[in-house]
Amino acid sequence: MTEASLDRSDVSRAERELTGRVWRTPVVRCDPLDTIAGARLWLKAENLQRGGSFKVRGALLAVDELARAGSRGVIAQSTGNHAIAVALAAREHRLPATLVLPRDAPSTKIQKIRDAGAEVVTAGTLLAERTAVVEQLRERHGYETVDPYENPRVVLGQATATAELLGQVVAEGTRLDAVFVPVGGGSAVAGACLAASGSGTAVIGAEPEAVPALTTALRAGRPVTVPARHTIADGLRPDRIGALPFGLARRSVTSVVTVSEDTIADALRSAFLHARLVIEPAAATALAAALSHAAEYGGEVGVLLSGGNIEPSLVAAVLAGQGRLA
Amino acid sequence: MTEASLDRSDVSRAERELTGRVWRTPVVRCDPLDTIAGARLWLKAENLQRGGSFKVRGALLAVDELARAGSRGVIAQSTGNHAIAVALAAREHRLPATLVLPRDAPSTKIQKIRDAGAEVVTAGTLLAERTAVVEQLRERHGYETVDPYENPRVVLGQATATAELLGQVVAEGTRLDAVFVPVGGGSAVAGACLAASGSGTAVIGAEPEAVPALTTALRAGRPVTVPARHTIADGLRPDRIGALPFGLARRSVTSVVTVSEDTIADALRSAFLHARLVIEPAAATALAAALSHAAEYGGEVGVLLSGGNIEPSLVAAVLAGQGRLA
Repeated sequence: MTEASLDRSDVSRAERELTGRVWRTPVVRCDPLDTIAGARLWLKAENLQRGGSFKVRGALLAVDELARAGSRGVIAQSTGNHAIAVALAAREHRLPATLVLPRDAPSTKIQKIRDAGAEVVTAGTLLAERTAVVEQLRERHGYETVDPYENPRVVLGQATATAELLGQVVAEGTRLDAVFVPVGGGSAVAGACLAASGSGTAVIGAEPEAVPALTTALRAGRPVTVPARHTIADGLRPDRIGALPFGLARRSVTSVVTVSEDTIADALRSAFLHARLVIEPAAATALAAALSHAAEYGGEVGVLLSGGNIEPSLVAAVLAGQGRLA
Repeated sequence: MTEASLDRSDVSRAERELTGRVWRTPVVRCDPLDTIAGARLWLKAENLQRGGSFKVRGALLAVDELARAGSRGVIAQSTGNHAIAVALAAREHRLPATLVLPRDAPSTKIQKIRDAGAEVVTAGTLLAERTAVVEQLRERHGYETVDPYENPRVVLGQATATAELLGQVVAEGTRLDAVFVPVGGGSAVAGACLAASGSGTAVIGAEPEAVPALTTALRAGRPVTVPARHTIADGLRPDRIGALPFGLARRSVTSVVTVSEDTIADALRSAFLHARLVIEPAAATALAAALSHAAEYGGEVGVLLSGGNIEPSLVAAVLAGQGRLA
């Protein structure tokens, strides 16, 4: 499969493959957030998903295929959620798994990987550092790589979260004017573009001001490595958008907005206090963008709350109103 | 309506009256909590309900009736959630509302009442102190009282939360062996008894060790005022079970378990870290009881997560592992 060959029917097939293997997460409504946004928000609560994020969807599809092909084990790099997801998928197939994370990855995420019985290796803080380690270990162990951005089955799996949201809103008798999704390596936004294709729903990417990988790539017309600045949105730290996601997003994303660190913290606090959902900063980035921009796109707006794996200490700091977090 | 005349068909009628006026809150599943409990837990997420708790159900039904009868305004005493619910219901009918809360009620709850346009009066810390103030103000203003425990429509409304949960689990192809509900003034447990009547699902009440109002009443054969000791479960502080709820619970509750303060804090932390749900200590009391006792009742166990109105400072303290909170 190449980017040009992926389409909405592949997403429907992926949904069928995942039925009964992932939670059909709820779509949460919240009056106070609607008031802030000036639109009805439909919050796709993938923070309640198995493994704490939507990434289990893509990992299952990818590891299924590798297991069928007789893989001896799997390896992946990730800022955390893809790693948890690959560890869970590998466990389903009784395959060994090694996951390469940045050395400053949240300990909550590392613990979840170990709980799933997989091995954790840490390497630097940059995508290129992790990729190099994956390459070394892959050869040494004879494992297959589950790339979080370039694997078409990963992108299709992530697409099912948005597809499910669109269907759940239709079942409530309306239709989304737009859906806001966070942008890290790009699998969520690329998946959303595939899922929303032909539906008339605009796809809006949301990324931290600190790491505007998609904004920069769209301007340049190709993926570009951006300076690695700190963001509390640890899941959105990849400093370069994947080539496959870029190809998909470029042709159909409606727009990309950037969000300040303070606004991410505010949205995290709002999700907590008003929607009573524990979300991670990556998800809060999409919510922050929706709270500021939803009304520009119409009255019915979806938000992909991509995950809920957050350090308790960070939540405590955010709740204490410490907007700026080192 | 008296306690003897209420039955399952009244709950079904209440469900129809509330359709489209309250959220059909999701039932959340969570593998790590299942592992702790040794049973499949079905978490009825009423923390995601309008007003942040299941109490909006009973308040709407009660205030509807008063509005139809030409009420000039409504008044209620509450530890917080019933007050928020009555304020929201009164706003729907454009009726003035006065709510009487303990002077140490969480400021989050007081703010939500004011946000709904109602007046807040604080009075002492004991149920009897609030009841006395309600009586004075009711006469002065010519308002109708919405009693949180003795009003049959309040109990029927609260019953719809459990009824909805039972139906949602059946729709997933199984049936609950038991449901755990928190016990404060008793409307939740009485409602659960009505909702579960004839279903074969056991109803287990959960109350703080510090305020065992139902345990004590069942032993005495009548409602008894218990010594008012401190509990972090502010919603479960009523020191006496209501007469109507007691009558209903006594004839059909399966058992009542008491939960220590540390265990409540642990359950709150678990809901947060594993289920990614923000719940208040009253809801955590039911979860704590289920985590310890679910397996005694079977493999499929519901938990009424009654609300999510909690002070951010308390969450921060609990996450920091301060089990014992003054």
